[in-house]
Amino acid sequence: MITYDTDPSRYAHWRLSCDGPVATLTLDIQEDRGIQPGYKLKLNSYDLGVDMELHDAVQRIRFEHPEVKTVVITSGKTRMFCSGANIYMLGLSTHAWKVNFCKFTNETRNGLEDTSEHSGLKFLAALNGATAGGGYELALACDEIAMIDDRSTTVSLPEVPLLGVLPGTGGLTRLVDKRHMRRDLADVFCTTSDGVRAARAQEWKLVDHIARPQQFDELVRARALELAQQSDRPGGKGVALTPLARQADESGYRYGHVEVAIDRAARVATLTVSAPAGPQPQSAEEILAAGAAWWPLAMARELDDAILMLRTNDLDIGLWQIRTRGDLDAVLAADATMAQHKDHWFVRETIGMLRRTLRRLDVSSRSLYAVIDEGSCFGGLFLELALAADRSYMLQLDDAGKTPKLAVSPANLGLYPMNNGLSRLATRFSGDEAPLAAVVAAAGKPLDAAAAEALGLVTFAPDALDWNEELRIAIEERTALSPDALTGMEASLRFAGGETMDTRIFGRLTAWQNWIFNRPNAVGETGALKVYGSGAKAKFNWERV
Amino acid sequence: MITYDTDPSRYAHWRLSCDGPVATLTLDIQEDRGIQPGYKLKLNSYDLGVDMELHDAVQRIRFEHPEVKTVVITSGKTRMFCSGANIYMLGLSTHAWKVNFCKFTNETRNGLEDTSEHSGLKFLAALNGATAGGGYELALACDEIAMIDDRSTTVSLPEVPLLGVLPGTGGLTRLVDKRHMRRDLADVFCTTSDGVRAARAQEWKLVDHIARPQQFDELVRARALELAQQSDRPGGKGVALTPLARQADESGYRYGHVEVAIDRAARVATLTVSAPAGPQPQSAEEILAAGAAWWPLAMARELDDAILMLRTNDLDIGLWQIRTRGDLDAVLAADATMAQHKDHWFVRETIGMLRRTLRRLDVSSRSLYAVIDEGSCFGGLFLELALAADRSYMLQLDDAGKTPKLAVSPANLGLYPMNNGLSRLATRFSGDEAPLAAVVAAAGKPLDAAAAEALGLVTFAPDALDWNEELRIAIEERTALSPDALTGMEASLRFAGGETMDTRIFGRLTAWQNWIFNRPNAVGETGALKVYGSGAKAKFNWERV
Repeated sequence: MITYDTDPSRYAHWRLSCDGPVATLTLDIQEDRGIQPGYKLKLNSYDLGVDMELHDAVQRIRFEHPEVKTVVITSGKTRMFCSGANIYMLGLSTHAWKVNFCKFTNETRNGLEDTSEHSGLKFLAALNGATAGGGYELALACDEIAMIDDRSTTVSLPEVPLLGVLPGTGGLTRLVDKRHMRRDLADVFCTTSDGVRAARAQEWKLVDHIARPQQFDELVRARALELAQQSDRPGGKGVALTPLARQADESGYRYGHVEVAIDRAARVATLTVSAPAGPQPQSAEEILAAGAAWWPLAMARELDDAILMLRTNDLDIGLWQIRTRGDLDAVLAADATMAQHKDHWFVRETIGMLRRTLRRLDVSSRSLYAVIDEGSCFGGLFLELALAADRSYMLQLDDAGKTPKLAVSPANLGLYPMNNGLSRLATRFSGDEAPLAAVVAAAGKPLDAAAAEALGLVTFAPDALDWNEELRIAIEERTALSPDALTGMEASLRFAGGETMDTRIFGRLTAWQNWIFNRPNAVGETGALKVYGSGAKAKFNWERV
Repeated sequence: MITYDTDPSRYAHWRLSCDGPVATLTLDIQEDRGIQPGYKLKLNSYDLGVDMELHDAVQRIRFEHPEVKTVVITSGKTRMFCSGANIYMLGLSTHAWKVNFCKFTNETRNGLEDTSEHSGLKFLAALNGATAGGGYELALACDEIAMIDDRSTTVSLPEVPLLGVLPGTGGLTRLVDKRHMRRDLADVFCTTSDGVRAARAQEWKLVDHIARPQQFDELVRARALELAQQSDRPGGKGVALTPLARQADESGYRYGHVEVAIDRAARVATLTVSAPAGPQPQSAEEILAAGAAWWPLAMARELDDAILMLRTNDLDIGLWQIRTRGDLDAVLAADATMAQHKDHWFVRETIGMLRRTLRRLDVSSRSLYAVIDEGSCFGGLFLELALAADRSYMLQLDDAGKTPKLAVSPANLGLYPMNNGLSRLATRFSGDEAPLAAVVAAAGKPLDAAAAEALGLVTFAPDALDWNEELRIAIEERTALSPDALTGMEASLRFAGGETMDTRIFGRLTAWQNWIFNRPNAVGETGALKVYGSGAKAKFNWERV
């Protein structure tokens, strides 16, 4: 079983050091410590384990180091920044592993941009040596890129010419959409394995700043401090991210506020998320004192971990049922507390963590059903879970006392935008203003199944007589369908409306890469990915499709 | 060799009848006349040959019937509108054939929307019987959908549950983006093979109008006339689309203004497009009198046909070099004539044909190099060909008399938007306003290689000494790369900036469908597409990827 547990004391590949407003993340890969056997992480190349550490390190800077305003990402090797994803690892991996690896790597990198935009934590890539493939894509996710000009160091995206696959973590998209590189120059850049040296890299907009080796550290320091000027992070004491208490066995995963029950025969997981119970901190001081135990953060970390665990370890569990338990008012009160203190750095970071966790759900290649039954509390933040689902079932009871209710809160109206930049409600109504306005008007009111159905908030509202049977059939029918067709369908229906760099990465780029990862020209016996490093030349079927 | 030649007298599957402002296209498939052997086109199901006729019919209405304002698309069968793409054909087809078929079908359907938007020709789907899969997707491409309410007829998208693939011609995209269907209802709709009857279809926004059988013809007639009210098509005498004079052999295709020379050993095609020669019509009357021989239309039809021929028959010709020959001023004069008469229906239709042809180039899965050499005339309309290319090479000569020139014209500033809704110039500069403004300021001036390079209009400008060698190496390097990786890369780099329904269909949806079309769950020995109709049940690998 793969877990995502780590902390700076256990990092094998990254060093995190903080110096006032500037943190430095130094990539210094131990080539013998790949997460799976069979390959060496040469040339500062990475695998999933390396990216788990990067993800953890950024999380710690977000929460444990509010004094940090700029993160410098650089390398501890000589003349080598990062050569990207390890090619032998890719060659040995199953299709599912490759895709899951790319998804997590993409989420981590998109997360840098998310945090720069929303939390004012800036990122500077300091390319102090050769930068290739995924190494350059990591730099592309930073706010600025500085590159050493030693007349030999290059940046490159050699995936197409060397490996017969795409740069899979946003490179193509960010070149043209983020850095506004001309597409013909991007075409040239992405089809030459040689790469580009500093002067041309700057001219072509591949990097922002260049400096000779003697001046490089000075340049990096100056840019880091300049970026720090754009940050509103307040400093002060951080919140320690204590280890997650996860109990895991064949039947699932259990945390404090999140429980995952896996029915392996049915290929269904039931995720149950619980509302806060008992008195909750109200003031910023109380919230800070609660720290990692504060319910919104604790729940978000557990849910995030559960999603990653299921994605990585339970590939054939194709349907996730999402349930909630607890007091609807307690969830709405948590929303209100977060709204009241949303400008406090710790609350802002917690909202960011929730935003990214909900987005992880959106891009998970699993069918999602929300089950709104007795004892549930789909209000505000928890309503986002139902809105993230592909469909929802809400129980309709005659007994008003027992009948489950859901509620819209201001948290549903833009606090947690999807990757497409829209709220889940706006996406749901796909640009239709009247139903959205009706929902907004109902905010704050507990809604039973009939009201929720009338407002278009739930898909089906069976009564008690039909409930079990309808749900059972819906689950059985879903889990009988082709997993691949479902993945493609869900990826197409979940993001109506706008497109952003993120949706282009998860929608367009990922789909093309998945296709290429399956084609004999990449993974066949004489495919480019397969023969790389063997001395043999790839043999292609020349048909253009 | 497959050709796209047809005309109404040769249609096997469609009937075209015109009655004043309303044309009716009746689908009445002859099941024994598939374009390839091995399957019967039962249940009004279609293959590439059926869509070739649809494409031809719409072209004829555009040009030969300016009096038509609304096209009604309906069926000549009893209780069966259309059951979509023929499943046995899909099961028998190669991957490349399926993808090319879907692309042409998508282009034809997007073309209906393009014509509705730009030429005021409206489309009404009259679903007079069962409508499934690609049959419903054809309806989705129309402006309005009317459905018979006989208590048994359904609409459905059964691809996911029945075949383990996606609705591949825009269904998923149009449900949520065009018809604003709620994504959870779309999820339900796309996972049930049963389909939805008229009342619910209307409630779920799947159709616009329903009527009982006795009233259905009346409803269709009324809606067709209502849509006609929205049209500004003028009536009058049409322009006959005379047959294309194509000479084809192993070495390529030759037309009046377009020549395709295929070097099969090098896997390179050279498309040479010629400027108008001699006096050209100036007034609308003269243009109409020229008809299908008018240079912009004749050239567009030839280029369109050449693209389709190469795509369908020459799969391994991976690189298309685009060259032009003739007088730069003659091309700019043609632009000026079109601009002067752009509101005349025939000129408007010709501009539309050029717009769609250029878009066909944009979505062709072939590498495109523009070669701007001596004798070339990349001005205005022809500059669009260079801007559509993945990169361009412009010869730099000392001799000012011989040095090739290109020129920007108003035609480059929005007359031919790409599928992303932006001009090729705006896409090229990806939102950067300064270089775009500099190009606009240079409009009308002949630009040599140095000037064009400085303005960012060409990728490389080698001098005479390097020209042959640099071009030879660039071609050899390109054609050595993985065809699949190039397809994914080009699809990612060509459409920087905005996304539209069309780019979602060609980018996101097509990529997912290509992936699914390659997966064992669809096309393996026990895959859903493979076993369909055999009585056997598909066996899936349950891993979600």
